[in-house]
Amino acid sequence: MSLLIRGALLEGESVDVAIRNGLIESVGPTPVTSGESAPEALFDRELDGRGLHLFPSFRNAHTHVAMVLFRGYGDDMPLMEWLQTRIWPAEKVMTAEDVYHGARLGLLEMIRGGTTFLNEMYWHRPALLRAVEEMGVRACLGATILDLGDDALLSSQKAEIEELVAARAAGGLEAGGRVELSIAPHAIYTVSPAVLEWVARISDDAGVRVHIHLSETEGEVQGCLDEHGCRPAELLERVGLVSPRLVAAHGQFLDRSELELLARGGATLVTNPTANLKLATGGIFPWREARAAGVRVCLGTDGAGSNNNLDMIEEMKVAALVQKHREVDATALPAQEALAMATRAGAEAFGQGSGTIAAGEPADLVLVDFSDPATQPLHDPDSALVYAANASQVHTTICAGRVLMHGRRVEVCDEKEVVAGAVAAIREVLERSGAS
Amino acid sequence: MSLLIRGALLEGESVDVAIRNGLIESVGPTPVTSGESAPEALFDRELDGRGLHLFPSFRNAHTHVAMVLFRGYGDDMPLMEWLQTRIWPAEKVMTAEDVYHGARLGLLEMIRGGTTFLNEMYWHRPALLRAVEEMGVRACLGATILDLGDDALLSSQKAEIEELVAARAAGGLEAGGRVELSIAPHAIYTVSPAVLEWVARISDDAGVRVHIHLSETEGEVQGCLDEHGCRPAELLERVGLVSPRLVAAHGQFLDRSELELLARGGATLVTNPTANLKLATGGIFPWREARAAGVRVCLGTDGAGSNNNLDMIEEMKVAALVQKHREVDATALPAQEALAMATRAGAEAFGQGSGTIAAGEPADLVLVDFSDPATQPLHDPDSALVYAANASQVHTTICAGRVLMHGRRVEVCDEKEVVAGAVAAIREVLERSGAS
Repeated sequence: MSLLIRGALLEGESVDVAIRNGLIESVGPTPVTSGESAPEALFDRELDGRGLHLFPSFRNAHTHVAMVLFRGYGDDMPLMEWLQTRIWPAEKVMTAEDVYHGARLGLLEMIRGGTTFLNEMYWHRPALLRAVEEMGVRACLGATILDLGDDALLSSQKAEIEELVAARAAGGLEAGGRVELSIAPHAIYTVSPAVLEWVARISDDAGVRVHIHLSETEGEVQGCLDEHGCRPAELLERVGLVSPRLVAAHGQFLDRSELELLARGGATLVTNPTANLKLATGGIFPWREARAAGVRVCLGTDGAGSNNNLDMIEEMKVAALVQKHREVDATALPAQEALAMATRAGAEAFGQGSGTIAAGEPADLVLVDFSDPATQPLHDPDSALVYAANASQVHTTICAGRVLMHGRRVEVCDEKEVVAGAVAAIREVLERSGAS
Repeated sequence: MSLLIRGALLEGESVDVAIRNGLIESVGPTPVTSGESAPEALFDRELDGRGLHLFPSFRNAHTHVAMVLFRGYGDDMPLMEWLQTRIWPAEKVMTAEDVYHGARLGLLEMIRGGTTFLNEMYWHRPALLRAVEEMGVRACLGATILDLGDDALLSSQKAEIEELVAARAAGGLEAGGRVELSIAPHAIYTVSPAVLEWVARISDDAGVRVHIHLSETEGEVQGCLDEHGCRPAELLERVGLVSPRLVAAHGQFLDRSELELLARGGATLVTNPTANLKLATGGIFPWREARAAGVRVCLGTDGAGSNNNLDMIEEMKVAALVQKHREVDATALPAQEALAMATRAGAEAFGQGSGTIAAGEPADLVLVDFSDPATQPLHDPDSALVYAANASQVHTTICAGRVLMHGRRVEVCDEKEVVAGAVAAIREVLERSGAS
């Protein structure tokens, strides 16, 4: 499959982008004339990029995509009441099929918002894999560990991971290489140090990423100090988990020495500002300190149950707003850095090249239409995208050289069928759980 | 002009809304059958509301609409550098015609986001009035005072106000009654107490609203304490401005006794969370304390130069997020209250009825289409609107019974012509100012 984007705008210039085998083959100024040997003849498909702005696509570095099923199901409730009366009873009766339907809806929303990659943690990984395969995005799908002291449950979770690691070692590619495995112990307060050590050994031996929630609340920090005599990131180091394969979400309460420890180990952090504000976890991600320590920081929406959308454009804005507020400095986290956090940082963290638009890079791109009155006049495309736009201005989404959406028409599924499937699934989940 | 909306969803029920002479005539369950005397025959126009959700339209209670021209023009800069090197040089050469073009673009954006009213403060009021007349919204247009000690300037500003007040007293309706006058002294640190007293007298005598910036920064509070020996709201009381006609924007640093003082006087506050985060003014609006004091609080986007859009849906979400964060309480400012702040509070503050959808109320309404994957499944329409939607899901905007937008097609202007006019205007402004 080859693709030519003609005449799109990139950093103020009109460019043609040639794409072959999932990679950007060339990026260059739009030819002034095109004669009989017009380049489009050599490509399977050509997109007219005139008037549209090229950006790297978004990488959602921490989410629970199937939780779109719980979007708006119990907002504005205290966390434990929400979990105990809404989420947990429903999750208890969710099947793999429900997760599949939820994931498809979430992926559809992501594609419509220009996101082509998600770092995911949830149950029923095979169902998530099926949805990702169909929808054409990239993903790092976690095999979750959350045993709550149940030995039988732990054994089955470990067995699943060993199987997945073995399949990966044997060269088995998931979704043609678009999907990667991670081991996803839920958090330090739900998974024991012994199990975390086991995860660290597998991650080391097999070179597999680890995805974990870290330092999301002050309660977690205090609990760790009380129980283990150290702070959360120190515990991760103690069990051997701090490595370039570690991706830790939230990190709201990491202190300077923890950030330095994570930076030394080459770990990646993911900030989820909207969900953390909405859940009122307190604190704001220590962006300035993380930057000073040199740790890589990506951006994620978290699940839609606590956001309530998967819009990385909105997430960039909220991230920039809260950092300006935290620093009492209007220059903190400028648009360009917010954009890099939502694009380049995620590509780098997950081994998908540099996340820039250049020859040899994976062809993960969006075309944005700033002609909407809400993004005119256009003094600065980066600023327009971060501060003024929303997901509806994403015109075209391309992942691994494949057009997933063009002119806001999603090409990888029947949108109405996907929505209907998810709506039916959650209705039945709530009926089974006795909630409705 | 009469209008019938058939079968729209309101609080879980399918309703028909009959509108005549700008008012809601009736709201009732959709008739099951419609025979030869079908009610639509009696209306000039009928809208099919099936599958669409009815909400009151949004009231943007503090903005500088023409500043959309500066959207993205110098983001992420320190406030004074931004004002001195970008905004002031450009504003210096802006003509009434430029303000007209900017205002039309901003109003177009507002209509596309479901906003039918703005409380406005800027220069060139006649140009703003012309744009508002054409675009069909309601507005309270401030006659601005910002004299900076220039006596000639002050005299001309006072003369303009006296003229407008006299025209109003003589029964002159602006935009057929859709536009109201306010006197808009910029702030306590830019307008002297003597001039503020003059404003208070006119406001008292003529029953005209006053629109002012208040307590936006700690510097303003400290300056007031140093110069006047009292806090900003106390100064307003001292000069006689605290009344039910006072609308004060920002209020970030009002303390409890100031909030009580404003509540006793029946004044209205407007919070502008996005702009205040983006400008890094520090602090967060004291919502809980304002509520406890009983002062009315509306919502506004401020100007797009510091937001960078005029999307009241996004503003509701940011307002709810920052209050949850401030209170470390996920139940703070729930969706229903955010919605009331963006709709009812503004209607009440500006004498436009109760801002609810009921017989006898002004017909200021939106129809929202939640079929977008980002707002499915739909567990709770209020939550979907506040936490998951964006402006693009507003399907129809109605102001004073007139359809301003339907099916996302704006009916009151040629969108492309409005955008082009604004783009040309700012280009010429920047050329004249020597910036480009």
